[in-house]
Amino acid sequence: MRKALAEVKALAFDVFGTVVDWRGTIIREGRRLGAAKRLVVDWAAFADGWRAGYAPAMDRVRRGELAWTPVDALHRMILDDLLAQFGIAAAFDEAERSHFNRVWHRLKPWPDAVAGLKRLKKRFVIATLSNGNVALLVDMAKHAKLPWDAVLSAELFRHYKPDPQVYLGACELLGLRPWQMMMVAAHKSDLDAAKRCGLKAAFVQRPLEFGPGARKDLKPEPRFEVNAKDFIDLAKKLGA
Amino acid sequence: MRKALAEVKALAFDVFGTVVDWRGTIIREGRRLGAAKRLVVDWAAFADGWRAGYAPAMDRVRRGELAWTPVDALHRMILDDLLAQFGIAAAFDEAERSHFNRVWHRLKPWPDAVAGLKRLKKRFVIATLSNGNVALLVDMAKHAKLPWDAVLSAELFRHYKPDPQVYLGACELLGLRPWQMMMVAAHKSDLDAAKRCGLKAAFVQRPLEFGPGARKDLKPEPRFEVNAKDFIDLAKKLGA
Repeated sequence: MRKALAEVKALAFDVFGTVVDWRGTIIREGRRLGAAKRLVVDWAAFADGWRAGYAPAMDRVRRGELAWTPVDALHRMILDDLLAQFGIAAAFDEAERSHFNRVWHRLKPWPDAVAGLKRLKKRFVIATLSNGNVALLVDMAKHAKLPWDAVLSAELFRHYKPDPQVYLGACELLGLRPWQMMMVAAHKSDLDAAKRCGLKAAFVQRPLEFGPGARKDLKPEPRFEVNAKDFIDLAKKLGA
Repeated sequence: MRKALAEVKALAFDVFGTVVDWRGTIIREGRRLGAAKRLVVDWAAFADGWRAGYAPAMDRVRRGELAWTPVDALHRMILDDLLAQFGIAAAFDEAERSHFNRVWHRLKPWPDAVAGLKRLKKRFVIATLSNGNVALLVDMAKHAKLPWDAVLSAELFRHYKPDPQVYLGACELLGLRPWQMMMVAAHKSDLDAAKRCGLKAAFVQRPLEFGPGARKDLKPEPRFEVNAKDFIDLAKKLGA
């Protein structure tokens, strides 16, 4: 292993799409709900719409149009809009909306994720570094048995990724210099933002994140310290 | 189990003295260091002095005499003073002081702690709620295999317990109302502060925290929802 990698003490993981399959989980839960309520809905489009509303909602917070708002509340705003757009708003009462909104707390991990994290945990501090709020990430870890050493969230810094305060704040909380921390993500923009703060970066391919038909940029990049196919491959490449 | 207890979703644990044996660990590590360096030191008195410096140091932060300072840095200030007081300052260089200061990251759990936490984790979210900083608590959990769902610390709120911001901030991060959270501690003042914020309280006896000779208030109190002998007894009383 190269010397640069030997310096790494902690791995900070993006979560939605990198650790868990948001799209597949929402589709499955939507279909079950739809069948029970006899709704005809394209749940894949619904899942994609929910996710697509997320970056613009965070941008409203970033621009100061909205005060600091945890992701649970952003997800709920988007959900209410989507239920109206899909013409099924009347089918969901308050308790059902609140429950469906928490599907993000119940997202299922990619098949390699838990085994890979357990292996990586033996050698590194493993932490979330997600825009998801703490309650969401803690619930998800309990449902999915994700063995985090620490649950770190944008919420702790009141800034969303890719704002530098999130990456640098995580290093400070773990008592590490930026080069001792490696960001792990399936999204190159997240990794590039981490690298601008001095962190190292590991790109993990998640070809199915946006569905089997979607085009996704999966190309390994020499500018990242590691490019891996999944968390088992990442563990191998990090000597864990 | 009473209805009030059935509402509890998460347990927030005091750590130093409640989960881990700071005194025993420091004495053992001090004796090893002392033997290697041929120092004659009363390591029990040293451990007690280190702990005794802690509350006054936090008070300096609380009064604004010191800017926000993580406990690692407070411990180091106290350590430097103590080494001088015990006349052994010259025996410790910078690297040795830094290493010894991190004995707080290596504190050993009470014998029932890990088994009790594993049992409680099946039914509740279990989190730290300590004045120790995040890096200290994460390191400690890794050393001692403490299976926390979340590592919450005074550091996240820039207030030390018993300031209400710590208890209320923890509830907010976990998405819970105060009555859904129970503080677990071996110190009645911590529990009373939590109760003033609306949390529930579980008192755990730790008769050896201040050493076999010390007088410690171990009396069960009807004002706490639970009084337990240790974490196994706590799990039993909480139906976990």
